[in-house]
Amino acid sequence: MSLTDHADNSPAISGLSDTQAMLIDRYWRAANYVSVGQIYLLDNPLLREPLTHEHVKPRLLGHWGTTPGLNFIYAHLNRIILARDTDLLYVCGPGHGGPGMVANTWLEGTYSEIYPAISDDEEGMRRLFRQFSFPGGIPSHAAPETPGSIHEGGELGYALVHAYGAAFDNPELVVACVIGDGEAETGPLAASWHSNKFLDPVHDGAVLPILHLNGYKIAGPTILGRSDDTVLRQLLEGYGHEPFFVEGSDPMDMHRQMAATLDRVFDRIAEIQHAARAGEAPGTIRWPMIVLRSPKGWTGPKDVDGKRVEGFWRAHQVPIAEARENAAHRRLLEEWMRSYRPEELFDAAGRLLPELRALAPAGDKRMGSTPYANGGRLRRALRRPDWRDHAVAVPSPGGAIGEATRQLGKYLADVLRLNADARNFRIMGPDETASNRLDAVFEVTDRAWMQRTEPYDEHLARGGRVMEVLSEHLCQGWLEGYLLTGRHGLFNCYEAFVHIVDSMFNQHAKWLKVSRGLDWRRPIASFNYLLTSHVWRQDHNGFSHQDPGFIDLVVNKKADVVRVYLPPDANCLLRVADHCLGTHDRINVIVAGKQPAPQWLTADEAETHCAAGVGIWDWAGTDRDGRELDVVMACAGDVPTLETLAAVDLLRQHIPELKIRVVNVVDLMTLQPRSEHPHGLSDNDFDSLFTRNKPIVFAFHGYPYLIHRLTYRRANHANLHVRGFKEEGTTTTPFDMVVRNGLDRFHLAMDVIDRVPGLAGTTAHAKQAFRDRLIEHKQYITTHGEDMPGIREWSWPYRAPSDAGD
Amino acid sequence: MSLTDHADNSPAISGLSDTQAMLIDRYWRAANYVSVGQIYLLDNPLLREPLTHEHVKPRLLGHWGTTPGLNFIYAHLNRIILARDTDLLYVCGPGHGGPGMVANTWLEGTYSEIYPAISDDEEGMRRLFRQFSFPGGIPSHAAPETPGSIHEGGELGYALVHAYGAAFDNPELVVACVIGDGEAETGPLAASWHSNKFLDPVHDGAVLPILHLNGYKIAGPTILGRSDDTVLRQLLEGYGHEPFFVEGSDPMDMHRQMAATLDRVFDRIAEIQHAARAGEAPGTIRWPMIVLRSPKGWTGPKDVDGKRVEGFWRAHQVPIAEARENAAHRRLLEEWMRSYRPEELFDAAGRLLPELRALAPAGDKRMGSTPYANGGRLRRALRRPDWRDHAVAVPSPGGAIGEATRQLGKYLADVLRLNADARNFRIMGPDETASNRLDAVFEVTDRAWMQRTEPYDEHLARGGRVMEVLSEHLCQGWLEGYLLTGRHGLFNCYEAFVHIVDSMFNQHAKWLKVSRGLDWRRPIASFNYLLTSHVWRQDHNGFSHQDPGFIDLVVNKKADVVRVYLPPDANCLLRVADHCLGTHDRINVIVAGKQPAPQWLTADEAETHCAAGVGIWDWAGTDRDGRELDVVMACAGDVPTLETLAAVDLLRQHIPELKIRVVNVVDLMTLQPRSEHPHGLSDNDFDSLFTRNKPIVFAFHGYPYLIHRLTYRRANHANLHVRGFKEEGTTTTPFDMVVRNGLDRFHLAMDVIDRVPGLAGTTAHAKQAFRDRLIEHKQYITTHGEDMPGIREWSWPYRAPSDAGD
Repeated sequence: MSLTDHADNSPAISGLSDTQAMLIDRYWRAANYVSVGQIYLLDNPLLREPLTHEHVKPRLLGHWGTTPGLNFIYAHLNRIILARDTDLLYVCGPGHGGPGMVANTWLEGTYSEIYPAISDDEEGMRRLFRQFSFPGGIPSHAAPETPGSIHEGGELGYALVHAYGAAFDNPELVVACVIGDGEAETGPLAASWHSNKFLDPVHDGAVLPILHLNGYKIAGPTILGRSDDTVLRQLLEGYGHEPFFVEGSDPMDMHRQMAATLDRVFDRIAEIQHAARAGEAPGTIRWPMIVLRSPKGWTGPKDVDGKRVEGFWRAHQVPIAEARENAAHRRLLEEWMRSYRPEELFDAAGRLLPELRALAPAGDKRMGSTPYANGGRLRRALRRPDWRDHAVAVPSPGGAIGEATRQLGKYLADVLRLNADARNFRIMGPDETASNRLDAVFEVTDRAWMQRTEPYDEHLARGGRVMEVLSEHLCQGWLEGYLLTGRHGLFNCYEAFVHIVDSMFNQHAKWLKVSRGLDWRRPIASFNYLLTSHVWRQDHNGFSHQDPGFIDLVVNKKADVVRVYLPPDANCLLRVADHCLGTHDRINVIVAGKQPAPQWLTADEAETHCAAGVGIWDWAGTDRDGRELDVVMACAGDVPTLETLAAVDLLRQHIPELKIRVVNVVDLMTLQPRSEHPHGLSDNDFDSLFTRNKPIVFAFHGYPYLIHRLTYRRANHANLHVRGFKEEGTTTTPFDMVVRNGLDRFHLAMDVIDRVPGLAGTTAHAKQAFRDRLIEHKQYITTHGEDMPGIREWSWPYRAPSDAGD
Repeated sequence: MSLTDHADNSPAISGLSDTQAMLIDRYWRAANYVSVGQIYLLDNPLLREPLTHEHVKPRLLGHWGTTPGLNFIYAHLNRIILARDTDLLYVCGPGHGGPGMVANTWLEGTYSEIYPAISDDEEGMRRLFRQFSFPGGIPSHAAPETPGSIHEGGELGYALVHAYGAAFDNPELVVACVIGDGEAETGPLAASWHSNKFLDPVHDGAVLPILHLNGYKIAGPTILGRSDDTVLRQLLEGYGHEPFFVEGSDPMDMHRQMAATLDRVFDRIAEIQHAARAGEAPGTIRWPMIVLRSPKGWTGPKDVDGKRVEGFWRAHQVPIAEARENAAHRRLLEEWMRSYRPEELFDAAGRLLPELRALAPAGDKRMGSTPYANGGRLRRALRRPDWRDHAVAVPSPGGAIGEATRQLGKYLADVLRLNADARNFRIMGPDETASNRLDAVFEVTDRAWMQRTEPYDEHLARGGRVMEVLSEHLCQGWLEGYLLTGRHGLFNCYEAFVHIVDSMFNQHAKWLKVSRGLDWRRPIASFNYLLTSHVWRQDHNGFSHQDPGFIDLVVNKKADVVRVYLPPDANCLLRVADHCLGTHDRINVIVAGKQPAPQWLTADEAETHCAAGVGIWDWAGTDRDGRELDVVMACAGDVPTLETLAAVDLLRQHIPELKIRVVNVVDLMTLQPRSEHPHGLSDNDFDSLFTRNKPIVFAFHGYPYLIHRLTYRRANHANLHVRGFKEEGTTTTPFDMVVRNGLDRFHLAMDVIDRVPGLAGTTAHAKQAFRDRLIEHKQYITTHGEDMPGIREWSWPYRAPSDAGD
């Protein structure tokens, strides 16, 4: 059965017959009824008897204001799916309108299939109402628990960017994205409008933004809600859209407007795609979009206690308070619910009437059941090349110079090659792919670009798989949407500026934590961060570019979900990145430098070292003759590793009798107790590496506190001394950056001298020599503007390349 | 001397005579010359001899691409200042164009006044060139060191929001804000355009956005750079602006266009302000703005090594590489520099020629010297009421119920009253002022609102001092701009969503750290965060709203700059907030709940307790008879404090002989060693509170690791057990939130039993009773949907209000 209206020849502008409009209106009323029921009722779901105190929840929670609009859109999109057999994904920006999403997926049958205890009859309705925003039940927002959702909507701003991420490389999909006028005030949303410049009508699906203006946020009007249509049209046209307006409050009129508009809009999408896929030169594409202006809390109570509610911000959450205790309020609630005439919507058993159920599609065409919203169902394993193909030959530790990310770029180029047909891998970054030295990927692909090109442009193409935009928010959000719909990817970013998406990371980690606990949600590919251009080599850009704190944020999240890797060289980076691309339902953070630097491990050694996550570097230490150890020098991160090895070299020269063990940490989570993280070392293993009683001098990439917080329960923690970034930065030289933060070889060597008992007296000359070198260094760089020749070199047991590290 | 052209009657469209255009062009060439010199030269600044190897820097750093455009704008704004006696602040979004800002402030004389070693002659020029992006010198970006700057521009996105923050309540100021087309792609910038809806033409100054499109970011074209003017005009008109376009590359033509356009634009600003200040009904205001399209790297080398540079992304940073080593490149550089004809710009001593110097204003009218860019010069102390006026009467600990933020709202209302005439205090928040229960402020003021109002609207007004927009980015950025120009304020925010501005916090902390070290920068008021609607009372909104991690980020920053306060009740909140409003050059973070909760301290007690930052609550413990202590129960945060006191109550009932000390922490920084933070307790003081050997059970508001990282050096750290948020959240009840995270009274009491030696055997019945209560609780809430009656009550030594905590 189709609801389109080709038979009655009505004009295109009003594509809905009266009968059809009445049917849709009843469906909408059912959704509104079930939404209000969730907010208010413990029992008596079909109002078979007058509402009493016991029928009403003790805590009234939920957001009514946006919900009727969300339900209105859902009902009309159902019509489109049936009429056009479209694959539609509903991204609900105002995710706090959770009652609406739950109501609709229950009405269409999805909910009861996923959660059989919530059956499609009166008892199911009772349980559905009861569980909403109820302990042991379901959250009040669209959430991982909500069928059909890839988007929480708790923290506003990311609806549209998620929608675009979902649409990329899904040519058959249309993503309907509802944007509330509160959300429209946020920065990420404001930037997201320009995502349409990155959408390829040939290989990507379509995004239909529906700007749902009900005029108010929690306690006041909104910017766009109070903008007149002329200015609003300019803005939306300025974003490159063709806006269609649906405005009013009379339901039947609104149904006709909405249906006619959706028909025009889906025609327009089809025309654009058809033309592009037929090979027509596209010119400038103006994708259609809809502005829906409807009253906040539409169809709800007009006034409560003499105060305006419908069409005002007071409708935002629970419009009638204290309905359990206050009999007058309870009567108002009952009147409101009865205004939807449930007897015209549900049969005697409480099931949606068949003529209404027929208005929703079936099976996976239902928006609650679409596999696009449960991306693990669509996910195909990424084909990964052998990372050893791009391993650096390392004849001896330190015996080669390489740029870690440049090697990774070659590996990623192979990943792109292998998965070119599958079109399921993208690289996101804020205009830094080349700057981060991943430019080998441009041998295989280009930057996605739909706007005008000039003859001298380089690596811009419609089908490009590298997405560059100077917005970390868009990079993050696009990739989230892309992964949540079953694909794979990598976000490469300057380390300091990934803090821009701290809160998006938080929300994605929370989403994964919850969805991992839901059997019906299939695993999605992990979110992979490559943080480069890191704190130690932003000497030229200065203090604002120097911040290694993102990983502190990361380790606050659930251990199941997060991983942090600090590969010390190119081969380790390759091994780690390859591993991460094969994982699912995690967030992997890799921190690695892009500058030429000494290489330590062969491919085989890197394999072993990274598989363990932490290990003793025998060749680097001086404790090889079996005598008792004096000190452990630990390191995590590429620059700290170099400085540690150079410090060993200094100590070997000045205090040859010192027995030093070098421990390198790749997988930061190994430091935590096993009880805290699945990668955590057992106490025995930890102690066998770090000893139970020897001093440990730990050179760390980030803020030193992080190492303490990971290790404070270990036996030898009291002997642990950590050097790291202590927020001392400016425009200077690479070596001066480590000196300013006490992470350089001289400070590390002095730390060892200060901590190994019985040495201090005999080594005053060594410490003086180190201090002298630091003074010399300071004088030299302020005179010459560059690091002193030889200052960054080292010798035994590795070679000393004179051009290392720059 | 004025450069306006009223005398020669030239048409308004070309307000510049040939002579004037030539003069401005020479000024511009001087700025460009001095900019290139900074990037390249160690010596020979006036090219008195041919460039040699020794004259060129070994490391070439800096961003040329945007610089000529910045210089062009600066020169023309100088003309406006002279012609109109305008107070102009230049906010340089492309702050990486630091050479331009430095060049201009040196040419106008500001630089040499602030830094006398950099004199205004040839030797000064030599030093100016040398110090740029040189160790011991100055950063490559506009930075705190740069005169006239309130904006770094390293992390892009915040130029326009800073500009608006500066303009609020500065009616005589015009803020010229240059926005690069890279920055225009960011989310915060995209949202900032709508700031014009919050600008009051009567009481605020004006913002002149200059969208400087040179077409490229680091390695590719930009979205707006490749948009055609029609679409761009729609977008900017959609933002509510009247855009004026200045486009081209021929210098003389561009000078004429720019001058004429600036004249029109400043006329337009004056008209708008004059009409509004004369009391005319404003209707919809369309503030003017400028789109400047000019080539990237304008006037630089067209091609280098056969590759396109000018007008392309290759001009972004250093257009001619290896100019020290490569003689051909060096010749190209010399040719480029000589193309500015320095002999027409500087006299024999290397000073700017008098007729050029006359093109810049003098004294504080210079954009480098304006006090608006050194806000401490303008700052007037905030008048603060007596916070005790709003103290809650606390007859006995726990003997009163109060809502902490509601009391603070009353205090803030007084602050607004006292400073109403000074117009130097604003409250920012994302639509949550009332939700956060600060609504007493609306007795005194309104929300700032310039758009249409409806008769039923509440608390919207043009002059409102509360700024609500659903964008944490705008709240943060406006307040930064407001403080940096010498005023005061508070940002109130849901705790979880303040992560949205993590990176802005980072950058502001870095700005403060550096500016505190510059004598000439006068102290500005502290940035004050009130984080409320916090993790423990977002039980109704669910997991996405539950995140206490912002303070982890905060404590990574320099100890001089950051403070974190966790007041346990209303009187402590009042005391802490009052203190914070009186501080300068800091970032104060206050975390406090908004729900009704028991009050512990009288005003006098709160004064003493908060002044110390941490203290023993004798009345709450059970160790008052002088016997040896068994355990320390520590707490930080309002909910953890309540649970700790309730746990003491349980333990007192079940194990009366147990000797418990209660320590409450208000100022988190007291926990750190004094060597790490100025508020840190000495080890002696710490040990006298926390003992050197007794178990400590610490109930903490945030992630428990934070307490470990602050205290790991303390003698008794091994005995410290911390409970806090362990990322377990959902939609549930308030008490269930603490249960899920093991922070509730029962878990705390069991923790004590487990840790006090010799108790375990005799207390099995107590533990079983606690476990039973937890099971009972779980059963009750999943049946009833609310907390079990009595579950949140407590008794001795405080009263048990039955309605506490909701």
